[in-house]
Amino acid sequence: MEEQQSLTHVRADGSAHMVDVSEKSETTRVARAEAIVRTRGDVVVLLAEGNLPKGDALSVARIAGIMAAKKTPELVPLCHPLPISKVTVDFEPNAADGTIRIEALVKTRGVTGVEMEALTAVSVAALTVFDMIKAVDKAAIIDGIRVLAKSGGKSGDWEAGA
Amino acid sequence: MEEQQSLTHVRADGSAHMVDVSEKSETTRVARAEAIVRTRGDVVVLLAEGNLPKGDALSVARIAGIMAAKKTPELVPLCHPLPISKVTVDFEPNAADGTIRIEALVKTRGVTGVEMEALTAVSVAALTVFDMIKAVDKAAIIDGIRVLAKSGGKSGDWEAGA
Amino acid sequence: MEEQQSLTHVRADGSAHMVDVSEKSETTRVARAEAIVRTRGDVVVLLAEGNLPKGDALSVARIAGIMAAKKTPELVPLCHPLPISKVTVDFEPNAADGTIRIEALVKTRGVTGVEMEALTAVSVAALTVFDMIKAVDKAAIIDGIRVLAKSGGKSGDWEAGA
Amino acid sequence: MEEQQSLTHVRADGSAHMVDVSEKSETTRVARAEAIVRTRGDVVVLLAEGNLPKGDALSVARIAGIMAAKKTPELVPLCHPLPISKVTVDFEPNAADGTIRIEALVKTRGVTGVEMEALTAVSVAALTVFDMIKAVDKAAIIDGIRVLAKSGGKSGDWEAGA
Amino acid sequence: MEEQQSLTHVRADGSAHMVDVSEKSETTRVARAEAIVRTRGDVVVLLAEGNLPKGDALSVARIAGIMAAKKTPELVPLCHPLPISKVTVDFEPNAADGTIRIEALVKTRGVTGVEMEALTAVSVAALTVFDMIKAVDKAAIIDGIRVLAKSGGKSGDWEAGA
Amino acid sequence: MEEQQSLTHVRADGSAHMVDVSEKSETTRVARAEAIVRTRGDVVVLLAEGNLPKGDALSVARIAGIMAAKKTPELVPLCHPLPISKVTVDFEPNAADGTIRIEALVKTRGVTGVEMEALTAVSVAALTVFDMIKAVDKAAIIDGIRVLAKSGGKSGDWEAGA
Repeated sequence: MEEQQSLTHVRADGSAHMVDVSEKSETTRVARAEAIVRTRGDVVVLLAEGNLPKGDALSVARIAGIMAAKKTPELVPLCHPLPISKVTVDFEPNAADGTIRIEALVKTRGVTGVEMEALTAVSVAALTVFDMIKAVDKAAIIDGIRVLAKSGGKSGDWEAGA
Repeated sequence: MEEQQSLTHVRADGSAHMVDVSEKSETTRVARAEAIVRTRGDVVVLLAEGNLPKGDALSVARIAGIMAAKKTPELVPLCHPLPISKVTVDFEPNAADGTIRIEALVKTRGVTGVEMEALTAVSVAALTVFDMIKAVDKAAIIDGIRVLAKSGGKSGDWEAGA
Repeated sequence: MEEQQSLTHVRADGSAHMVDVSEKSETTRVARAEAIVRTRGDVVVLLAEGNLPKGDALSVARIAGIMAAKKTPELVPLCHPLPISKVTVDFEPNAADGTIRIEALVKTRGVTGVEMEALTAVSVAALTVFDMIKAVDKAAIIDGIRVLAKSGGKSGDWEAGA
Repeated sequence: MEEQQSLTHVRADGSAHMVDVSEKSETTRVARAEAIVRTRGDVVVLLAEGNLPKGDALSVARIAGIMAAKKTPELVPLCHPLPISKVTVDFEPNAADGTIRIEALVKTRGVTGVEMEALTAVSVAALTVFDMIKAVDKAAIIDGIRVLAKSGGKSGDWEAGA
Repeated sequence: MEEQQSLTHVRADGSAHMVDVSEKSETTRVARAEAIVRTRGDVVVLLAEGNLPKGDALSVARIAGIMAAKKTPELVPLCHPLPISKVTVDFEPNAADGTIRIEALVKTRGVTGVEMEALTAVSVAALTVFDMIKAVDKAAIIDGIRVLAKSGGKSGDWEAGA
Repeated sequence: MEEQQSLTHVRADGSAHMVDVSEKSETTRVARAEAIVRTRGDVVVLLAEGNLPKGDALSVARIAGIMAAKKTPELVPLCHPLPISKVTVDFEPNAADGTIRIEALVKTRGVTGVEMEALTAVSVAALTVFDMIKAVDKAAIIDGIRVLAKSGGKSGDWEAGA
C-alpha cells in the first residue's frame, strides 16, 4: 500500500524513526504559519492597546514564539535540528472580532523545510497570549494553526488556499 | 482602570513579571485541555488504524505531549515551575470527519493551576501529529485548543461550555 | 583547615558535589541582585527612549532575565533546583552616564537561597542588552554583578554595603 | 534616523526579530572575552591553590563555561544557533589582588560572530565561581565582562583598547 | 492478567502515561547506582593518575553526571520532576583491571524514588569518560549499570545482591 | 609523553577544553552502538509481547533514545553540536534470555563522528526501558554499551570485534 509509506517518519513495520536527510541539498527555505487566539474584544484592548509606558504584553509572546522556533527539534521528536537564519513573529489584534492573529516567518539555509519551526513559533506565541489573558478569559480558544506558505527544497513552493 | 490589573503578568507600568505565588496554598489541582487536528479521512486511517506490528505513530505524539507538559515553564516565559504529578494524553481519531481529537489531563500538588501545562501538552501533541502527516497533507489545521475543565485552587472549579 | 570546608561545594579531598539540603527547612527566601551595562549615552537613548510604537528592546532583555532565572540549575552545575515563586527584572537607563542598571528580585518558598537565580537573571539580561547593542558599541562592558540583599533561611538577612 | 536602524534586532516599528543571516557567508570566526571575579585573597587561595588531591573547584567553573557557550541561543533570545567548533575557558587567579580573571575563546565556521558565545562562557563561569565562594564571601563582585577581540566575518577584525 | 498492570507506566490498553503520584507522601529518599567503564590499564592511568597540574579529566565526568541527574525528567519521558537535594558521583579507577567504577548517590525529599536519577548520573558520567578516551580506545565498554540500594518511600528499603 | 596527548579533550596542563574542529572536512559519518538490558523472561514478555491494542512500552524507549541523540552535546560536556541527519533505535527482545538488545544508528553530514550520539541514544533508551520495568524488576542491569561500527571521517572505518 503506497499510502503507508507516505508517513515518512514511520518505517514499514510501523516503528518511528528520524528519516535520513544526509543526501538532501542545502537550499534557502522559508515557511510562514499562522494561529488565531479567539477571546473578547475588551481583552484584546487590554493586551494590545494599553497606553502604558512599557507595553510588554505582546512582546512577551513574540519572544516566546521566536525562542520556541529554536526549540522545535527538542519538542517534536522526529524533527531534524536546523540552523535557523531568521524568525519574525507578528500580531494583528482585532478588537471588533475579539481576535489576535499571529503570523510567523522562519527562514533557513538547510536540508529540510521549516514549516514545523513556523508552526511551533505561532503555537507557543498563542499559548503565551493565553497565559497572559487566562485570568480574565478562561474560555479563550486557539484556532486555525496552519502553514500559510513554504518555499525552497525539492518539493517546490506551496501556498495555502484562501 | 481595574481591567489593566487583570493581566496578572503585567505590572502597573505595562512591564511583564513573574507574579508572586509564594503565599498561595499548595492543593491538588487538575486541568483538562483539548485540541483538534483537521486532516483527511485517509490520513486519519494511515495514522491510527494501520495493522502494522509496531504502530508508533500516535505513540510518538503522546510522548511528545507528555514531555512538553514538563517543559511548559521553559516555553511560556512567565509560567511558574511546578512539580507535575500526573499527565495523560489521549487521541480520538475519527476517519469519517477526518479529525483527531487530542485530550490531555495534568495534575499537580502545587501553588498554581496546570491549565498551561495541559494546553502545552495538547499543542505539542498536535504539532507532532502534523509533523507525521505533513508529507501527505500540508493543509492540515490545528483547531480548538482550549481548556475543558480545571479544579483546585482558590478560584474554584471551572468547566468550559458545550 | 577550617577554611577548606568553607567551599561548601567541595569535599575534603577537593572533589565537587551537590551538597545535601534535605534537612534544611522550607522558608520564604528573597534575593536582589544588580548588574550595570556601560555603553555610550546615544546607545542608551536608542535602547530606552525611542518613541517607536513597539518598543521591544528592553522587553527582550527582561524576558531573557526572567527565563534565565528558571534555568539557573541547568547553568550553574552545583545549584539545587528550586520552585521559583516570583521574578522581576527592572532597568534604569541613564543616558547622561551611558549606563543601564539592571536589578532583579527572585523569591521562593524553598530550602536554599535564591541569590544565584537573581545573579543569573541580571547576567543574562545584561548579555541580552549587549547583544542588542553590539552592532553599535562592541566595547560595551558589563560591570558590577553582585547581590544587593538576601533574606530568609538560617544564615539570616544580609545586605550589601553602599 | 539612521541610528534607529543600528539596533539590528529591532525593526522599524520597534518590535524585536531574529535578523536574516541566510545570505551571510560561512567563514572561520573567533572571539575572545573576559570577566573578573573580585573577592578576597584568602578566597582565591581556597579556590585555586589548595593542595587537595582532587582540585575540582575551578574545573567546575570551566565546564560550566564551556557548556554555557553551547546554550547561548537558548539564553539570549535573538541569537542564531551556531555550530561551535572550539571553546576554551581559562582562569588567572591572583591572590594578591583577590581576583580571578576568566578568559574564553570560542571559534566557529559559521555565518555570525561568536562574541555572544564567548561572553556567555565567561559570565556563566564567573557565576559558577561565585556559587563556589558565596558561603565565604557574599560580597564578591563580577566585573569587566567584555569582548577582547573578534576576527572573521564581513565587519573585519576588532580588538578592545587597553 | 495481573502482570500487565505491573508496568506502571502503561495503562490497561497498552498506552503510556505519567502515573499519578499526587497522593504519595513526601519522604526523604536515597538511591545509589553504579556503572563500570571497561578499557585498558594504560588508558586508566592516563585518565586518573596523570601528575598534571590541572587534572580535569574525571572532574568533567563528575560534573556531567551531577548535571545529568537534574536532567532525568527531560531524558526519561515518564519520570516525574523531583527537587533533588544531594548528588555525589565518585570514581574508582583500577589500572590493573583496566576499569573505572562509577558510583552515584542521589537524595531527595519528594514523592517518588530517585533510582532513575542515580542511574542517569552514572550513565552520563560513563558516557563522558568514554568521550574522553575514545581517541585511544574505541572498543571501551560501559557495563553493569544498576541500582545498588534505595531507601525511603512506601516500598521500603532495597539492596542489590552481591 | 605521547599518550598524554591522546586524551584529546585535555590540554598539556591537564585542563579540559572543547577541541578545535573548524578545519576538519564535512563528510557523511555513520555510527552504530548497542546496549543490552538484562532482566527476567516474564518481564521481556510484558514489555514486548503484550497483545494490547496500544503497545506503547518500547515506543516510549525508542522516542527517548532518538530525542537523547539530539541532546548529546548538552549531556556530554566536550561534545561538539552536530546537525544529525538520521537516527534509528531498534529493539531485539529475547524472552528466553531475559534480555532486550538495543541498537541505534546515527548519521550526519558533519565534521566529527557520531559515536557519542549513538551511545547516548542506546543509553537513554535503556534507562527508559529500566524505568518501565523497575516496579517489577529492581535488579535489572544495563550492560555492554559499546560502539559497533563507525564510518566516515579521516580516521577511517572501524568495526568492533565479535
